[in-house]
Amino acid sequence: MDNLSEKTLSSTMVYEGKILNLRVDKVLLPNGKESGREVVEFSGAVAVVALTEENNVLLVKQYRYPVSEVLLEIPAGKMDHNEDPDTCARRELQEETGYTAKSLVKLCEFYTTPGFTTELMHVFLAQGLTAGVASPDEDEFVKVEVVPFLEALKMIFDGKIRDGKSIAGLLAAQTAVSK
Amino acid sequence: MDNLSEKTLSSTMVYEGKILNLRVDKVLLPNGKESGREVVEFSGAVAVVALTEENNVLLVKQYRYPVSEVLLEIPAGKMDHNEDPDTCARRELQEETGYTAKSLVKLCEFYTTPGFTTELMHVFLAQGLTAGVASPDEDEFVKVEVVPFLEALKMIFDGKIRDGKSIAGLLAAQTAVSK
Repeated sequence: MDNLSEKTLSSTMVYEGKILNLRVDKVLLPNGKESGREVVEFSGAVAVVALTEENNVLLVKQYRYPVSEVLLEIPAGKMDHNEDPDTCARRELQEETGYTAKSLVKLCEFYTTPGFTTELMHVFLAQGLTAGVASPDEDEFVKVEVVPFLEALKMIFDGKIRDGKSIAGLLAAQTAVSK
Repeated sequence: MDNLSEKTLSSTMVYEGKILNLRVDKVLLPNGKESGREVVEFSGAVAVVALTEENNVLLVKQYRYPVSEVLLEIPAGKMDHNEDPDTCARRELQEETGYTAKSLVKLCEFYTTPGFTTELMHVFLAQGLTAGVASPDEDEFVKVEVVPFLEALKMIFDGKIRDGKSIAGLLAAQTAVSK
C-alpha cells in the first residue's frame, strides 16, 4: 500500500464557534472503503520559551476550563488573522508576562493533536529579555512565575508541568541551548 | 486575584460523535463576568517511545486527515473504555508495529491542548523489544519505520517530525536514557 492518503467525499460544518469550528467529513480510505472524519478547525498558535540572563524561564499559571485545572505553561496564544508566528510570539510574550525579547528564534513546530484538529503550534526561544508591564486580554487571568530552567525541566518528570507544548518547548530549548 | 478558576453556569452538548464530543458551556469568570467555553471531549490516549537494543526508535508513518499530511509519529492511540494507560500502551505498540516490550516505564503525561480539549496523553518508554506481526485496526493504515534514535532527535529540529506528542516523547526519552 503506497498511498496512505484519504480523499474527501463530502464535508458538513456541524458548528462554527468563537475559537473553533467542527466539521464532519466523509472520506474514501486507501482500501476503497468509506469512513467518517471529525475535524476540529483551529487557528495556528505560538508558544515561547523565554530565558532570562540568570537562566530562569518565564511560566504562566492559568485555569484551563476544559481540564478543570490550573496549569503551569510557557506563554502561548492563538495567531490573529494574517498574523505571522514571529509577531504573534512577541505579542503573546508581552501581553502575558510584560517581557520583550531582543532575540527570538524558532525551535520547532508541530501539530498538537493531528488525529482530530488542524492546530499547528510554532515554538520559539526568546532571549535578551527586558521586563515590562503585562497587558493580558480583558478575560484572561494569568500569573507569571519565574522558575530556574533546570527546575522547570525537572517539573516535567515530577508531573508538575502537564501541558504538551510546554514539555515539548522546554525540552527542545534544552537541546538548543546546550549546543 | 487568588482564585483563577471558572464556574460552570450551564452546559450544552452540541455534537456527540465517533471519537469526540463538542460541548459549549457558559462560565463565570474570576472577575464576575460571564463568558463561553468550547470544549472538545476526547478520551485519554497513550504514546510510546520504543527503543531497540541497537538504539533505534520505532516510528509510524500515517496520513492525518485533519492536517492533510502524512506524519511520522511515535506509536500511539486512544484508550478503550476502562483501559489503563499501561495496557493501552502495550496494545497500541503491538497493533501498530508488531513489537512487544519487556520493560515499559512512564515518562510523563500532558494535556495535548488544554485550551479546548480534555485529551490527556500518557507517554511511555518501551525497551527490551521483541519483533512480531502488526495487527492494525481494519481502517488504520500505518507504515513502520525504524530510525536511529539520534537521527529521530535531529528530525525534530529539521522539521521532519511535526507531531507534538512525538516531539515531547522523544525529547523526554533522551533525558531519561541519558541519566
